[in-house]
Amino acid sequence: MASDIIGVIGASRADDELLRLAEELGQEIASRGVAIVCGGMTGVMEAVCKGARAKGGLTIGIIPSDDKNDANQYVQVPIVTGMGVGRNVILVKTADVLIAVGGEYGTLSEIAHALNIGKTVVALRSWNLERAAEKSIPNLIDAKSPKEAVDLALDALH
Amino acid sequence: MASDIIGVIGASRADDELLRLAEELGQEIASRGVAIVCGGMTGVMEAVCKGARAKGGLTIGIIPSDDKNDANQYVQVPIVTGMGVGRNVILVKTADVLIAVGGEYGTLSEIAHALNIGKTVVALRSWNLERAAEKSIPNLIDAKSPKEAVDLALDALH
Amino acid sequence: MASDIIGVIGASRADDELLRLAEELGQEIASRGVAIVCGGMTGVMEAVCKGARAKGGLTIGIIPSDDKNDANQYVQVPIVTGMGVGRNVILVKTADVLIAVGGEYGTLSEIAHALNIGKTVVALRSWNLERAAEKSIPNLIDAKSPKEAVDLALDALH
Amino acid sequence: MASDIIGVIGASRADDELLRLAEELGQEIASRGVAIVCGGMTGVMEAVCKGARAKGGLTIGIIPSDDKNDANQYVQVPIVTGMGVGRNVILVKTADVLIAVGGEYGTLSEIAHALNIGKTVVALRSWNLERAAEKSIPNLIDAKSPKEAVDLALDALH
Repeated sequence: MASDIIGVIGASRADDELLRLAEELGQEIASRGVAIVCGGMTGVMEAVCKGARAKGGLTIGIIPSDDKNDANQYVQVPIVTGMGVGRNVILVKTADVLIAVGGEYGTLSEIAHALNIGKTVVALRSWNLERAAEKSIPNLIDAKSPKEAVDLALDALH
Repeated sequence: MASDIIGVIGASRADDELLRLAEELGQEIASRGVAIVCGGMTGVMEAVCKGARAKGGLTIGIIPSDDKNDANQYVQVPIVTGMGVGRNVILVKTADVLIAVGGEYGTLSEIAHALNIGKTVVALRSWNLERAAEKSIPNLIDAKSPKEAVDLALDALH
Repeated sequence: MASDIIGVIGASRADDELLRLAEELGQEIASRGVAIVCGGMTGVMEAVCKGARAKGGLTIGIIPSDDKNDANQYVQVPIVTGMGVGRNVILVKTADVLIAVGGEYGTLSEIAHALNIGKTVVALRSWNLERAAEKSIPNLIDAKSPKEAVDLALDALH
Repeated sequence: MASDIIGVIGASRADDELLRLAEELGQEIASRGVAIVCGGMTGVMEAVCKGARAKGGLTIGIIPSDDKNDANQYVQVPIVTGMGVGRNVILVKTADVLIAVGGEYGTLSEIAHALNIGKTVVALRSWNLERAAEKSIPNLIDAKSPKEAVDLALDALH
């Protein structure tokens, strides 16, 4: 049987605080025995894979280019799409639940795509969509810490 | 030479006011001699194609299913992707500039994707992302009417 | 209503004889009032679009890159996928029937994909798959000339 | 670092002899410590995953639908694409080398796609493309047994 998979979305460039959060998030996910799928590149994606590998977690990277060597060194299973940013849709579909770290446009696109297909997104220092929509968004949940983010994500799954 | 193409994004279900706006938008785009690319299905997509056809415009639909007959009857060029919502990425890349009508999650995902790859989005009754980001978003412009939306979109192109 | 669309598949580099055939094929398709979808790039793809445009035909190019300017100059409707060779699947699905010109591996892949989803392929100087399979392949038909290829393709449609 | 991955391509329906070959192939690949990527569904895909799991191998399935539960029970890492047969391109790109089992059109399409992007394909009871092309095809190698297929595939990698 396939294990649960948490998708982690976040930018390829990020400040030190976000990278620290992402690495801690990777450790936290792996310590619960859950796999990670991400975009497989640098920044938040690399930090979360690094954290997960430190705790023996499984890391899957959905790579935008045609070259598996573009994956960061902490990706164990590189999926080579050659689809550029189009690969984000596969990332969202492959994840059982998502955690968004930080707030770039690419991340927003993935959050919206996840909400669109009915998946829960836990947000860590990310977009305040409820302000944009002027209404409550039930499947989008704010978390204060990596530990709380994983708790909320696993609650949404089970 | 390929003509300019305006992408129109909006939900497959919409209220009468949005449908009226979308149809007027289609007429306005076609009357400027510009082609339309959209998701090719119902709701906003059908209304904008209907308006464009009434003025002799070219309508391109990027179809999510494997069946060209799923396209609405006003689509002249159905592109059959079989990619489900993944086809939204192709819609955004194919458009030179985008106009968003209304505010569902699918539309938000496309707005964010367009901003992510540097394209301008003109918004008609859509998401208030500046409130979400608590900052100005230069490539996202609000319009009050279909006519103003097309003016702003063509300004961004040329 | 959407018009019929013939897909033309063939290599980006081709000898003069194939290019001449492809250009004549484009003229022949356009003179029947049928649109063309192809990969939008050089070689056979450019020649068939050139022929079609000379007769006022509609030419659709499914572009592998992220840049519509990569399309050859005879493409009227460039669809920008950013999916590399993955765009071939969209080309095959968008075509109602296909004509293969010449015999590179990319062309073979598209022929096989078309047969796999039940579409008819007419072959002009292309792969001899019946020899490979040691059996008859009902939906794969050899043609001796561009004119015969279009006759056979339209027969398969109607 | 990512491990080597062998792609196994073959039909969703297959006779008992092919299924037996595919299961033995899965055992052989896993016993060399190499991961498998396949289409994740029934037939050859299920048999090869079953064999690999019996030897503790890693099995990755590139799923055509939107539902990870469509994967066969021996897939450990289901990648959910929602792209239908378009997912075959991702399978081929993700594999370092491919082994084709049997001879349906879908398999032929993947063989041709792999050859097109320069990857080696080892064929077990598959298409005789050299007869079709009337020439030698250097990257397409026939194997007599699952063991020989894996030997040849690993030779091509290293």
